[in-house]
Order: sequence, then C-alpha cells, then structure tokens
Amino acid sequence: MLLRDLGEWELLRRLAAYAPPGQLDDDAAILAADCGTPTTPLVVNTDLLVEGVHFSDATMDPADVGWRAAAANLSDLAATGCGSVVGLTVGLVAPADTPWAWVEGVYDGLSLALRTYGGQLLGGDCSGGRQRMLAITALGRIGPGAIRRGDGQAGDWLVCTGPHGLSRLGLALLLQELPAQQAEALSPGLRQRAIEAHRRPRPRLDVVAALERSQPPGRPWRVGGTDSSDGLAAAAAHLARGAGCTAELCRDNLPIDPELAALPQGERWCLAGGEDFELVLALEPAWAQALIEALPGCRQIGALTSARDAASAGSLLWQGSHHPLEGCTGYSHF
Amino acid sequence: MLLRDLGEWELLRRLAAYAPPGQLDDDAAILAADCGTPTTPLVVNTDLLVEGVHFSDATMDPADVGWRAAAANLSDLAATGCGSVVGLTVGLVAPADTPWAWVEGVYDGLSLALRTYGGQLLGGDCSGGRQRMLAITALGRIGPGAIRRGDGQAGDWLVCTGPHGLSRLGLALLLQELPAQQAEALSPGLRQRAIEAHRRPRPRLDVVAALERSQPPGRPWRVGGTDSSDGLAAAAAHLARGAGCTAELCRDNLPIDPELAALPQGERWCLAGGEDFELVLALEPAWAQALIEALPGCRQIGALTSARDAASAGSLLWQGSHHPLEGCTGYSHF
Repeated sequence: MLLRDLGEWELLRRLAAYAPPGQLDDDAAILAADCGTPTTPLVVNTDLLVEGVHFSDATMDPADVGWRAAAANLSDLAATGCGSVVGLTVGLVAPADTPWAWVEGVYDGLSLALRTYGGQLLGGDCSGGRQRMLAITALGRIGPGAIRRGDGQAGDWLVCTGPHGLSRLGLALLLQELPAQQAEALSPGLRQRAIEAHRRPRPRLDVVAALERSQPPGRPWRVGGTDSSDGLAAAAAHLARGAGCTAELCRDNLPIDPELAALPQGERWCLAGGEDFELVLALEPAWAQALIEALPGCRQIGALTSARDAASAGSLLWQGSHHPLEGCTGYSHF
Repeated sequence: MLLRDLGEWELLRRLAAYAPPGQLDDDAAILAADCGTPTTPLVVNTDLLVEGVHFSDATMDPADVGWRAAAANLSDLAATGCGSVVGLTVGLVAPADTPWAWVEGVYDGLSLALRTYGGQLLGGDCSGGRQRMLAITALGRIGPGAIRRGDGQAGDWLVCTGPHGLSRLGLALLLQELPAQQAEALSPGLRQRAIEAHRRPRPRLDVVAALERSQPPGRPWRVGGTDSSDGLAAAAAHLARGAGCTAELCRDNLPIDPELAALPQGERWCLAGGEDFELVLALEPAWAQALIEALPGCRQIGALTSARDAASAGSLLWQGSHHPLEGCTGYSHF
C-alpha cells in the first residue's frame, strides 16, 4: 500500500494510533499542565511547507514563504486558544545551490511575522536536500481557555471570522489560471486583497481576546473551533465530526466577496479553496451573536444539529435541505 | 552567494542574528522561566533528517531511521541538561509512492525510543515531497541544572561519556567502505557494536542524573557541555569557543576502541566521525573525577586552558604540543 493510495485521512488516522488517545485531535497539541503554568498551558504545533506543494517561486517571494510558514503555524495556535506566542523553531532544507538571499528573505519574512504577532526565533536546524522545505514548530500559551475541535454541541451556531476563497483567488491570479475576461473584470481592490491573502495570510490570534470579551456573563468557557487552512467546508466537517453532529451551512450567508461569488468557481473556492487561515467556531447562540457584534467580518455560516445516526456524524448539509455537500472537504498533500 | 560557498558555520552564524543574542548558542533552546515551572524550565530542539544526507535505505531500515531521529533530538536535550522528556512532534515528508510500511517502520522506531526514554508523540504534520525527510521537535525538562556550551572555564577537565568513532566504523562496514582485509580482521563484537552505534545511537539522558550524584558537596552547579553529534573534536572546539579557551586533548587517552585505533583511519574517525551522540563536558577537576568514577565508560580526554589571545579562543591542540588539530571539526550537511 503506497501513501498515494492510502489517502491523507487514512494516513493521519493510522499515525494517530502512535499518540495517546485524542492527542492529535486538535489543530495543535496542548501540553500537560506541568509544562506551563496551571493557568496558561503551553501549546505546540508543527507544520511543513514543501516547495512545489505549498509554495513556489512563481507565486511567492522568499519573504512571503517565511511569513506564510510562520502564519500557518500561528493560525493553529490561535485555533487552539492561544492568546500569546512563545516563539518558533525552524528546520530549513535547501539544495546547496540555493542563494543565501533566498534564505535571508525567508528569515526576514519569519521575523516580520514574529515582530507582528509576538514570540521569538527559539532555534532550529538546517540541511542540504533536493527540494526546499521548511518545518516550523510554534509554541504558544493558552489564553482564557482552550479551543477544541470536539467542544461544539448540537444547537451551536457555526461562525467564521472572515472572508473565504480569497487565497485561492489570489493563487489563480498569480498563476494566470482565470480566463483573461474574468480576471480583468475583477476590481483592482479585490485582486490586491486576494493576492495579499495568498501571500501574507493573517493568523487570527486576535479572535481569542474577542471571544473573551464577548463571553456571556456567567457562562462557562466552551468553544469548539479550528482554522480554515484546509478549507471552510473541511473546517465545518471537523467541528461536526468532533461534536458527533451534522453541520448545516447557510448557502445564502457564505463569507464570500460578492465579486468572487459572481465567478463560476466562486462558491467552490469559498468552501474548499483552503489557506484562508480564518477561525471557524461552534458557539452557543448568545455567545456567537455577541462575537459577531464584537468582531468585524465575523458572521454566522450555519449551525450544528443532531446527527440522524452515527454514520452521518461529521456530514455537511445545506441548511433546509437534505443535500450533502460533496467533494469540497478533500485536499491531499500527496 | 550560494549556500554551498557560504559554508555551514557561516550560514548558522547569519541565521543566529535573527534570534535574541545567545539564543542559538546551545544544543537546544531553554525557554523562558514562565514556560515551565520555576524549577524545571522547558527545553525545545528541532532536528532534520534528510534521506541521502542523514540516512539511506542502504544502511538503515525504517525503524532505525525513526529511532535515530528521536535519539538525535533527545541527545540534544541531554546535552542541555534535561532529566526527562516531554515528547516530540514529527514532520514527515515522503513521495506519494512511498510504501505505508516504511512510514509505519519509522513510527515504530520513534515509538520505541519514546518508550525507552520517556515522552509522548505530541503531534505533527505530513506532506508529499520529492525526498524523504523527517523534522523532529523534542521538548524536555531541565533536571538539576542547565548544561551550556559556554559554561566551561580554564582549568576544567574535558570528559566524554563513551567511545567515539564507532558510529563511523558502523557506517563504513554497512557501506563496505573498508578493504576486505581490514574488515575481516575486526572482531565480531566490535563489528556488532559499531553497526548498533550507527543504527541505534543511545541518547545519554542518564548522564544528567550521574552529574547530580557526583556533584561535589557545596559546589554550585556549573556544567559546560554539548553532545558529540558533529564529532568529538567539534564538540571540544564548541566548548573551547564558548568558554573563550583553548581545548587541549590528550592523544594517549582518546575514547577509542583498541581495535579501531589500530586502523589507519581510527584516530580520525574517533575525532571527526560524528554521530556518536555521547556528551562532552567541561567540569572542575574534582567533579570530573567523581563523574568518571560514577559513570562507566566516562574518561578525561583533555582540559580547557587559557587562550593565548582572542584569536586562539576555540582552538584545539594536542596536550603538551603547539600543534593545532586540523581538518577534524568540519562536517557540512550541504
């Protein structure tokens, strides 16, 4: 059995058997209490960026690669409830004929992200290899409470913290994938935002403080959540699976720019484009409403409802229909 | 300027400028006190293993690769003074046509190392790529005190915790590098130990407890140290540089198996073979003597002496001579 045939989901399922039960269920790993202070547990997360899979010279300059590597990791920290960043380690593989200027650019991008979001370069390693690759491990501290994929419940609203599909549109523009007529019809503002979203995604560490501000008085901390790095639909499916629920999405309220929505591929990119690095949260309705008021760009995209049976836990439906959303939750890195 | 021309030392020097001063001076990074408990700071370390650079199917089976990846990281934790292991994250890159059995073997080896030395699989990431690669980040807890490369002083003895050159001999045997006459003259016991040293190196986490047991009463904790993953001579040079001293090595007391010493390349492999993963320590003489008595296989290999001038800090000499050791401290991973 080759990795290609196994598929990414099955591979991850098999690898999870090597860790304590539940250890790999979230965006990042929350360490045992004695690794941090009792009130602020530490969180650790490792992400890979491989040239040709996650980035290429055709669409990103080296500082973008460094920024994006840091941002993807910090997004996982945010999605686990981190309110602050300790720092990160960097494993860098590059062929011997790589210019120093490329490495310098990558580190400049990483450093800018750390200056922007806090944290230090803690250490790392470098080696030659046939393909450029970055392995980043980030450490952060839980803020007011942890965010877990499995902490949603039936009745929760699903909310997301910003627009989706922009990063995929940016990639399409950079690769000149769109027919010229479509590309030229887009406003310069949207084009710029899309390319920026692809090259310089912003980890939503600010959401953790907004969650704390909007927490209804007297209610316990319970936040289901993940980031949308694998796509909005995949994020909703993760939350549904974690909660043993069905996720029903409101087709009329997707977090999509109207211009993008007018493109034939707009809705698909919103749901499955990936790499938007927003947070998708499952919150009791009062908390969700308060968060939407507190956080510009945040909106309800659906709700968790009781699964009809065990087999349908984790499934995605359009609200008010029985039509499952097909083919929008899979992205393979193999 | 390409990485090949820059050289590994200069590359690491330039990358260190991105971290706070001193942050990258040790084998692993000691985190700020508020990341652990005040008495047991946390330590983090990232290591890369790239196929064709650090391992190959010709010399290691997948479980060896996993074991070695964990062991190299845990060795860096030991060299920073960790008495216990929290766990590690794994970033795995492999081509899509990689058999699942290879990945399973790697994780079996990683798991066996964690069961042997403590700690859990905390998390990770996987991706396709053209070349197999592992990026491991390990977290540990400082025991009785930190070990730092820069904590040696003139007058300290240099001690090492075990034999050197075995891993390089094992590699030579596996690659059939040695002339048949030389290889056949080696005893079966040495051949087996050499191959085991190459495939299943043992991180010396036990040394931390031995240091505590042998600490002279009333003396403060001060342990200069590093591991010998880059070679024994390189380790001694690191300690000399960190202390602003010269390292003088006793040629008559090298930690080398007599059979290996009889080979023409024996002394060179002892000094520069690398990957022996023992600890090399700078200790005041009374502590060094007590450690040597407490820890079988531990021996004095030299001493730190005052550098004649700033330019000679970090240099290596044979004891009683003015002959610098040339060409035995450089190994390039590019």
